[in-house]
Amino acid sequence: MHESQLLDIEEIVRDSFDEDEAGHLAERLNQLEPEELAVALESLPLEQRMQAWHQLELEQQIQTLHHMREDARQNIFDRLADEELSVLVDGMDVDDLIELLDELPSAVYQAACSKLDADDKRWLATALAYDDDQCGRYADHDVLTIRNNSKVRDAVRMFRKLHEDAEYQDSLMVVDRTGRFFGLLSGTRLLGQPSHLPIVEFIDEEVPQVQGEMHLDEGSDLVARSGYTALPVVDSEGKLLGRMSIGEALENLRRSLEGQFMHTAGLDENEDLFAPVIQSAKSRAIWLGINLLTAFLAAWTIGLFEATLQQVVALAVLMPIVASMGGIAGSQTLTLIIRGLALGQITHQTYFTLLRKELGVGLINGVIWALVIFAVTWLWFGDAIIGAVIAMAIVINILVAAFSGVVIPIWLEKFKIDPALSGSVILTTVTDVIGFFVFLGLGSLLLL
Amino acid sequence: MHESQLLDIEEIVRDSFDEDEAGHLAERLNQLEPEELAVALESLPLEQRMQAWHQLELEQQIQTLHHMREDARQNIFDRLADEELSVLVDGMDVDDLIELLDELPSAVYQAACSKLDADDKRWLATALAYDDDQCGRYADHDVLTIRNNSKVRDAVRMFRKLHEDAEYQDSLMVVDRTGRFFGLLSGTRLLGQPSHLPIVEFIDEEVPQVQGEMHLDEGSDLVARSGYTALPVVDSEGKLLGRMSIGEALENLRRSLEGQFMHTAGLDENEDLFAPVIQSAKSRAIWLGINLLTAFLAAWTIGLFEATLQQVVALAVLMPIVASMGGIAGSQTLTLIIRGLALGQITHQTYFTLLRKELGVGLINGVIWALVIFAVTWLWFGDAIIGAVIAMAIVINILVAAFSGVVIPIWLEKFKIDPALSGSVILTTVTDVIGFFVFLGLGSLLLL
Repeated sequence: MHESQLLDIEEIVRDSFDEDEAGHLAERLNQLEPEELAVALESLPLEQRMQAWHQLELEQQIQTLHHMREDARQNIFDRLADEELSVLVDGMDVDDLIELLDELPSAVYQAACSKLDADDKRWLATALAYDDDQCGRYADHDVLTIRNNSKVRDAVRMFRKLHEDAEYQDSLMVVDRTGRFFGLLSGTRLLGQPSHLPIVEFIDEEVPQVQGEMHLDEGSDLVARSGYTALPVVDSEGKLLGRMSIGEALENLRRSLEGQFMHTAGLDENEDLFAPVIQSAKSRAIWLGINLLTAFLAAWTIGLFEATLQQVVALAVLMPIVASMGGIAGSQTLTLIIRGLALGQITHQTYFTLLRKELGVGLINGVIWALVIFAVTWLWFGDAIIGAVIAMAIVINILVAAFSGVVIPIWLEKFKIDPALSGSVILTTVTDVIGFFVFLGLGSLLLL
Repeated sequence: MHESQLLDIEEIVRDSFDEDEAGHLAERLNQLEPEELAVALESLPLEQRMQAWHQLELEQQIQTLHHMREDARQNIFDRLADEELSVLVDGMDVDDLIELLDELPSAVYQAACSKLDADDKRWLATALAYDDDQCGRYADHDVLTIRNNSKVRDAVRMFRKLHEDAEYQDSLMVVDRTGRFFGLLSGTRLLGQPSHLPIVEFIDEEVPQVQGEMHLDEGSDLVARSGYTALPVVDSEGKLLGRMSIGEALENLRRSLEGQFMHTAGLDENEDLFAPVIQSAKSRAIWLGINLLTAFLAAWTIGLFEATLQQVVALAVLMPIVASMGGIAGSQTLTLIIRGLALGQITHQTYFTLLRKELGVGLINGVIWALVIFAVTWLWFGDAIIGAVIAMAIVINILVAAFSGVVIPIWLEKFKIDPALSGSVILTTVTDVIGFFVFLGLGSLLLL
């Protein structure tokens, strides 16, 4: 059985808490792949994480960092002595350095960069010319290239130089004499071919290319859908910068989808499970503060109707039902639309079809549940008019929720604001404020 | 430039709405890969979707279905005439049939199965012996196998038979004479090797194996982390059932992460953007109903304090602040824990460390925002005691939220209930009920 099936987080955590098991822990960790080590380290509280970290070889440490979340990585860097950090950084190649640019202390980073050779310095400059959410920044430098006028024997020689553990390297990247990407040459296509033939007749020239300026998510999608194990990343002139493998694409997509999920709660996708308390409290405080502002807005709306509430206290009792039904209905629509936007599935032409559909869904569910609420309220308070007031408020608020659930995320996206992050807070503000206003307003009109 | 870069959903949608552009639409669609066609079809309202569907060749239709979401697919099946459906199903291979088992009308399905040859029938029976969330069910049948006692020349012959567009097929699966998986043979490793050599010295025997009983998510994770482009799927005796490619793994992971996101709003990950109104209303009604129950519970809690509310109407005004701060703080913790559980990063040993950390974060943020709320409330209502009541309620409710945010999802997971689906509804019930109770209870004690 292969090492990859040895990842047993429970066991690793147990060993990391028990000093007598340090040897066993080291042995276990050294059997794991870097992707697995990253998952394992992130599962450990900081003290145990550092203990496990120190059991790893330098090369393993560097590989593992690459697969960890930013915050979890940062928490390791923060706990290393300066000399340890220098040794670590000295072992990194230029691709690692590019990735860790924002996380390493600037002195350490500068020192490492100054030691790079001319080629690597040029590569660093090229990569840093792209933004940190663009594919050009993270193009994998470790790519086997061959000129398009080569012979089969040259290609075979290159393939035989491949490390046995090179991941997703079943093809060579073919370039022309100016360095522009020309096509992919698959190793298996060369099997049994005479070695004097030119490779040109075996080259796949119909390969999608990832543009350096593409957003990381877009490039990753392209790689994932292409059916190739890696695609070339090229600059605006078509020159080969590097490659993006399906493994990288998969990690990018995972992060982006995890981000969508985490953002709905105002969290960053990089949040470390075991971040120090102060650090976590800080990163979450803003979200609570924003929410507090909107809650005061809702309270202020209620405050407009103090006189009514004093006379009909049943309205105060029922308020949360109006707000919560609106919030839930709205977040269903919102979530569907956010997913659609993320996949590029929502267009101008279908905008109104969607709005009509969601309003239709809202009307049906609004009316059904309003009838239920009407009946329960009537029974509870023995007053049909209170029932009618809340029923009307529910229908209106669910329609408002459906409308907002479509309009808010599309509008946010237009202004390049992440709808997963801000959508729900804006939506619930709308449904709270309008819900309370309509409910208490109707109550004032019909019950006083 | 390759076809894959031609996916322009805006344009496809525009053309699908314009009858004069049917020719243009057909041309565009025929340039797309099945993965892209799936995204494009899902972006179209049902009428336009069917129009676009009918522009596709049979083979394209079948390939595209494979990449679509269940509901979107079902909405196509529902709109096809019986004969069309039969033609479609007759063109499918056994792997397609296995996937569509639950979606095709049972008569159509039975008819198709009866036409399968003996080999395929056996395969069907093997696959259906696994559950619909197990890897064995979906093992890809289309796999090139070779006996471990073969020669290089046999392997080369097999590779040359490969279709040019075979995705992620850079290796042969090697089996022993009993059909047990033996290892992987990479094509590139054979380059330049004499054809009379036995393949056995080039076989990679350290390959992780996906067990047929593994959960789809677990198997997909294994493939994704392995660095291989495909892994063998084996039965309990180690016999090769088929393969899972990195492309499949990526789609599975995407679906599972999208599901996590959609479940937070009580939606199914298969929900079709353009589902018919009635169908959507039905699928969302239950969630609203469950929420209504919990909202009535919250209302009932408030109802216990009617007398207090009548005398201090300010409490009614401030109620939503207590509930909403608790809800937000709780959902932050909940979201973090759900992600941790999904990645298997939460263990017995670290449970209390996490609880302590989250309570610490809650205490800090609770106290900070309670002070702010105290000050604002005092200014607003000119009554320090009202400010003190809400401040205390906020601190308590945020601590309750932090505790529940850790305990609820872990507890749900133990009972195999999806915490992404039920976690937030239970959590907000707890924070609403306890928040209202503490706030109004303290108000009754201190203000009357």
